[in-house]
Amino acid sequence: MADRTGEPLSRRALLAGSALSVGGAIGGAAAVAAVAARESGGGAPAVPSSTVDYGGQMVPFHGRHQAGIATPAQAHAAFVALDLAAGVDRAALRRLMLLLSDDAARLTQGRAPLADGQPELAQVPARLTVTFGFGPRLFDVAGLVEQRPATLQQLPEFPIDRLQQRWCGGDLLLQICADDPLTVAHAQRMLVKDSRSFAAVRWVQRGFRRSRGMQDDGVTQRNVLGQLDGTGNPVPGSAVFDGAVWISTTDSGPQWLHGGTTVVLRRIRAELESWDAADTAGKEFAVGRRLTDGAPLTGRHEQDLPDFAAKNALGLPVISEFSHVARAHVTGDRQRIFRRPYNYDDPPGPDGTADTGLVFAAYQRDVGGQFLPIQRNLAEADLLNEWVTPIGSAVFAVPPGCEAGGWIGEGLLG
Amino acid sequence: MADRTGEPLSRRALLAGSALSVGGAIGGAAAVAAVAARESGGGAPAVPSSTVDYGGQMVPFHGRHQAGIATPAQAHAAFVALDLAAGVDRAALRRLMLLLSDDAARLTQGRAPLADGQPELAQVPARLTVTFGFGPRLFDVAGLVEQRPATLQQLPEFPIDRLQQRWCGGDLLLQICADDPLTVAHAQRMLVKDSRSFAAVRWVQRGFRRSRGMQDDGVTQRNVLGQLDGTGNPVPGSAVFDGAVWISTTDSGPQWLHGGTTVVLRRIRAELESWDAADTAGKEFAVGRRLTDGAPLTGRHEQDLPDFAAKNALGLPVISEFSHVARAHVTGDRQRIFRRPYNYDDPPGPDGTADTGLVFAAYQRDVGGQFLPIQRNLAEADLLNEWVTPIGSAVFAVPPGCEAGGWIGEGLLG
Repeated sequence: MADRTGEPLSRRALLAGSALSVGGAIGGAAAVAAVAARESGGGAPAVPSSTVDYGGQMVPFHGRHQAGIATPAQAHAAFVALDLAAGVDRAALRRLMLLLSDDAARLTQGRAPLADGQPELAQVPARLTVTFGFGPRLFDVAGLVEQRPATLQQLPEFPIDRLQQRWCGGDLLLQICADDPLTVAHAQRMLVKDSRSFAAVRWVQRGFRRSRGMQDDGVTQRNVLGQLDGTGNPVPGSAVFDGAVWISTTDSGPQWLHGGTTVVLRRIRAELESWDAADTAGKEFAVGRRLTDGAPLTGRHEQDLPDFAAKNALGLPVISEFSHVARAHVTGDRQRIFRRPYNYDDPPGPDGTADTGLVFAAYQRDVGGQFLPIQRNLAEADLLNEWVTPIGSAVFAVPPGCEAGGWIGEGLLG
Repeated sequence: MADRTGEPLSRRALLAGSALSVGGAIGGAAAVAAVAARESGGGAPAVPSSTVDYGGQMVPFHGRHQAGIATPAQAHAAFVALDLAAGVDRAALRRLMLLLSDDAARLTQGRAPLADGQPELAQVPARLTVTFGFGPRLFDVAGLVEQRPATLQQLPEFPIDRLQQRWCGGDLLLQICADDPLTVAHAQRMLVKDSRSFAAVRWVQRGFRRSRGMQDDGVTQRNVLGQLDGTGNPVPGSAVFDGAVWISTTDSGPQWLHGGTTVVLRRIRAELESWDAADTAGKEFAVGRRLTDGAPLTGRHEQDLPDFAAKNALGLPVISEFSHVARAHVTGDRQRIFRRPYNYDDPPGPDGTADTGLVFAAYQRDVGGQFLPIQRNLAEADLLNEWVTPIGSAVFAVPPGCEAGGWIGEGLLG
């Protein structure tokens, strides 16, 4: 069973015969660089620019869980929602998922799908992952309503929402992530092309984070608001992560989803005009963290736990009970959610108003038991609401992974 | 005078006190990695993931030429066209260019502009360049019609064109390139924000190439059609490049543009549906090069010169006179153009039809004497026309660079 929380493999490193351990790809590439540096003699070494091989790195497609969730977030993402066509039934869905699983198994390993018109573009896998999700209506279409998780339904509209239908819903999710944008574009095209006889494109949301090599791997990144985004996330591979994200035999609900999870996808517009106008103190009071380093207002370091009981000289809480960090806080580890956010930045309006924000993906065992309570808390009284507006919303059940020879969704549709 | 064809500087490498030469940033980072590798002892070394510092690399803003042309193409680009507002005159243009030049000088060196609401986002320069271009109407607005280069006008519409006005024209071009998409987004927002009192956003075209570290620097990249795109380009820093791109005292035309150039920006849609349907032999016949390695049909390697006189067994030319490579060929070095293409990939239609292609930027001393003859040749009889459709077109004069304390356009507007 592949452990996807480790570092991915690199074809180039494998071909070079480097000794690989966990972290082997980067270690291997650096070892090559080291040798080159030593061989070049004194002074600034004339090392070739290929000190890294981000393009050759691969994430296993097969395994107990689908890749693209515990996988350290790649730099680029395309979230594609498909609407199943009239006449598509369980048998057709089976054919579709067989086909797309085969495409994904090949593309993620740097190989072209069978009907690829640009096979050369498949040669840079760049940690590509393809993650599939099943929307609420898919279960109706498949005649399997009783297999739908109880809380898998479109979220209620919250008072803060300004939902646009063009960013909502969908029967089948393709989450395509890689460190290279051309790799994402090519994979998206192949998967959409092979879906054509079965489904129409409902929406596509592209997202980005810092490119590889821009800052150290694993450090928390800033979003378009300038905030460090992702602090305090459950750590993939940890017991907390496993308990919060992966559905298991201890959960009620349909058995086919064991080893899977659910994803809530929210498109959250950043109101940069008014955010710009706010002062730093006001922003930090709203968030409950410092903007410079992400530390809670009661702490010194980003990873310090917020102290919600701490009072200032006037006897008032240092971290407001209406701050984002306070409203989003949950006490039980199994109530937590795992955030894997991307930025979006669409062209501004003629007057220069930014159209930018987050494609916010949250993974949890149970939408109703984990995501909804937090979202209700935020919608009710989060000071940050003044500067963020949810404009899109969708939910999907994420099936478990499959072994070689299998396909995603076989436990439900097989 | 800054030589922008060399490798950029890295703040992290400078801070670390590494010995720097040309190529110093990469060499310096690799040297750090080498030391770390050695210090970690035998086996696969536990090297930190920061073997590269792509994020800290900077390209000088000041110099004889504007950056972003001879600069090795960064991974991400935003081309922003602004329309000057009614009432803007030469004095207002001067203020605008002073402001934007100051913003660009700061942002490219990893420093926040004066009015930056998210100053933390400026800390990853990632080889950011900002290149300004002046559209034909800017000279009318400034009352400087006599200073407009004679052939700086919208291109005639060719029979192959299907131009959409939303991708055409513009008074002021901001070409924003960096290896990181968040860096591009932040710089774009700052520059657009500071342009607001003077101009409206006409269009924004985002483009991408392979991310840094995906393949070796300097190798020709593939575009969304799968072709190696950029083979045979004049090499920045060479006499051929300088003679084809930079306007000098030997050129007729306005003196203020010496050290500058012109850029033609074409949005070229790739007709991937029919391209997919064509067979490899047909594609290679249309292009005149092999798809696998980009070699001309008469050669063995990508960089081999095409032999237009070579005949096959039937006595027919191996490279068709109607092939793309034959139609785009020019004999004089000063007739050549410098291509710096990006890919675009907008969301597909509901039926899955791709909306993808090239943001094709071409730089040359003279639009009329260099770009137009090639474009006429292509429009007339290029076999590749079946699969590519120009849907956008714009031309801009690119002023020379400025020294510290100066601003872009001072030779015209000062």
